[in-house]
Amino acid sequence: MNEHGVLAVISGFSGAGKGTLMKALLEKYDNYALSISATTRNPREGEVDGREYFFVTEDRFKEMMEQDALIEYAQYVNHYYGTPKEYVLSQMEQGKDVLLEIEIQGALKVKERFPEAILIFVMPPNAEELKRRLIGRGTESMDVINARLRRAVEEAEGMDSYDYILINDEISSCTEQLHKMIAVQHSRVSNNLAFLSQIREELKNI
Amino acid sequence: MNEHGVLAVISGFSGAGKGTLMKALLEKYDNYALSISATTRNPREGEVDGREYFFVTEDRFKEMMEQDALIEYAQYVNHYYGTPKEYVLSQMEQGKDVLLEIEIQGALKVKERFPEAILIFVMPPNAEELKRRLIGRGTESMDVINARLRRAVEEAEGMDSYDYILINDEISSCTEQLHKMIAVQHSRVSNNLAFLSQIREELKNI
Repeated sequence: MNEHGVLAVISGFSGAGKGTLMKALLEKYDNYALSISATTRNPREGEVDGREYFFVTEDRFKEMMEQDALIEYAQYVNHYYGTPKEYVLSQMEQGKDVLLEIEIQGALKVKERFPEAILIFVMPPNAEELKRRLIGRGTESMDVINARLRRAVEEAEGMDSYDYILINDEISSCTEQLHKMIAVQHSRVSNNLAFLSQIREELKNI
Repeated sequence: MNEHGVLAVISGFSGAGKGTLMKALLEKYDNYALSISATTRNPREGEVDGREYFFVTEDRFKEMMEQDALIEYAQYVNHYYGTPKEYVLSQMEQGKDVLLEIEIQGALKVKERFPEAILIFVMPPNAEELKRRLIGRGTESMDVINARLRRAVEEAEGMDSYDYILINDEISSCTEQLHKMIAVQHSRVSNNLAFLSQIREELKNI
C-alpha cells in the first residue's frame, strides 16, 4: 500500500553489535538494502568498490559535495566519507528499506533532510556488557578499549535525538525487533499520502 | 526495560471493524487494557457499570470536568461522554498498553495532553469495501448507511493528523499488525528516559 521503502539510520556504541545485526537482517529478509558510503581513502585488502565503499578521488568527492549528491558527509583524519544520495533514493523507490550505518552527527543531518527517516540507536543491555564485549574481541589494547568507552560516554549524550533504542541482548530476537521497527514505519500516515488521497476521492464519488 | 505502558488511540470509519479488532487483540494478548468511558446517559439493557461505561450523574460528570479528571470529553445530543484519566494512567503505570477507541476530535485532544500517545486510524482497503460492510450488517437503512458514508468523507479529512493507518483487510493479520505497531512504541527513546539516564551513569563510572 505504501509508496516506497523506509530509510533506517542505525547508530550505536562501538561493540554494541551493529554490524552483526545488519548482516543478520540482510540475510533473513530480502526487503533490505545496505547504503554504501563513498570515501576518498584507499581500499584495504579484500575490499571491493561498490561493496564495502564507493572508492573515489578527492576531486570526485568534492564534485559530489558541490552537486548536492551526498546526503551527509564528514572528514576523518585526512579522508572524506559520505552517503551518496542517488543510491539510497533509487533503492527506496524500488521499495527497498535502506539501512544506513552512521555515527550520530551524520544521523542528525540525515534526519534534517529526510524527516521520515527513523533513527535507531543500538546498545548493549548495560555498560558492563559493553566493556565485556570490547574486551572479548581480543583484538584491541586496553588503551583502545578505554578510549572507546570514553567515546561511548560522549555518544550517550546524543541518544535522546534518536527515535528508537534497540537493546542488543541476543542477536536473533534483536534482529526480529529491528525488523518490526522498520516494518511498522510503512504504516505511518506520512508514508501513505497517495493512498489517503485516493480513498478520499473514492469516498466522495461512491 | 521501559517504564510504563503505551497509550494507543484507535479511530476509524464506522464499519472499518475497530470493535472486532480490539476484541481480538484483548483476547489474544494479556498486555492490553481497554479504556472505559464515563457517560451521563442511562445504561441500556445488558450494560454493566465499569464494563461498557462508568455511568455517572451529570453533576458528577461536571465535577470530573472541573477537577481535570477527564483526558477529553464531548457532548452528544443531551449526554456527556469522557475518558477518565485515573483509570488510563493507573493501567499504564501497571505496564498495560491502554486502548482508547474514540473519534477524531477526542483523539487530537488526547495527543495534545499525551504527546507520547500513538494515534491509529483503522480503515477498509477501499471505499467500496466500506460500503459493502455497512450494507452487509443488515441492521441499518440505506439512509443511515449513506449518512455514515458522508460522515466518513468528513472524517477522512482528519486522517493526516494520525500517526499510523491500519488497513483492516483480514482480521487476523490486522490484529497482528496493530499488536506490532503498539509493541514497537515501547522502544521509543521517549519511553525509555530512565533507562538511558541509568546507562549514562554506568558508562561514566565504569
